[in-house]
Amino acid sequence: MKAHVYVTLKTSVLDPQGQTIQNALHKIGFADVTAVRQGKYFILALADGLSVETATAHVESVARDVLTNPVIEEFTYHIEQ
Amino acid sequence: MKAHVYVTLKTSVLDPQGQTIQNALHKIGFADVTAVRQGKYFILALADGLSVETATAHVESVARDVLTNPVIEEFTYHIEQ
Repeated sequence: MKAHVYVTLKTSVLDPQGQTIQNALHKIGFADVTAVRQGKYFILALADGLSVETATAHVESVARDVLTNPVIEEFTYHIEQ
Repeated sequence: MKAHVYVTLKTSVLDPQGQTIQNALHKIGFADVTAVRQGKYFILALADGLSVETATAHVESVARDVLTNPVIEEFTYHIEQ
């Protein structure tokens, strides 16, 4: 079983790195990309035999307490069986 | 329209950052997380009125040529309408 966790800056937080990428894309001709936000992506491999409920609880806990800075970031995840 | 691009290290490439996270998780009690890989996640906002075909072609081009280092990374993406 695998979990995919996506951590992004909250929409209220400025993303200068994404802005820089968007500017660069604009300069090389991709004017139809109007905004870029950059986040982090984690793939967690989970032990065999874990129930979906336990896996979900652990992944949510790891995502909230370890992978995300709750002041400026938010996360989503999904479990892949 | 939005595009979500996921960039990960190729499976043949070592990921010391992911390994460090996995070790830390193990120490704080999440022993059922057996491996962690870290990647990057980009959200691209696309101009209104773009056809899905054009959007797909542009996103693929941006992902391949700008967001990914083809020597060590690979990417997937999906377009959200």
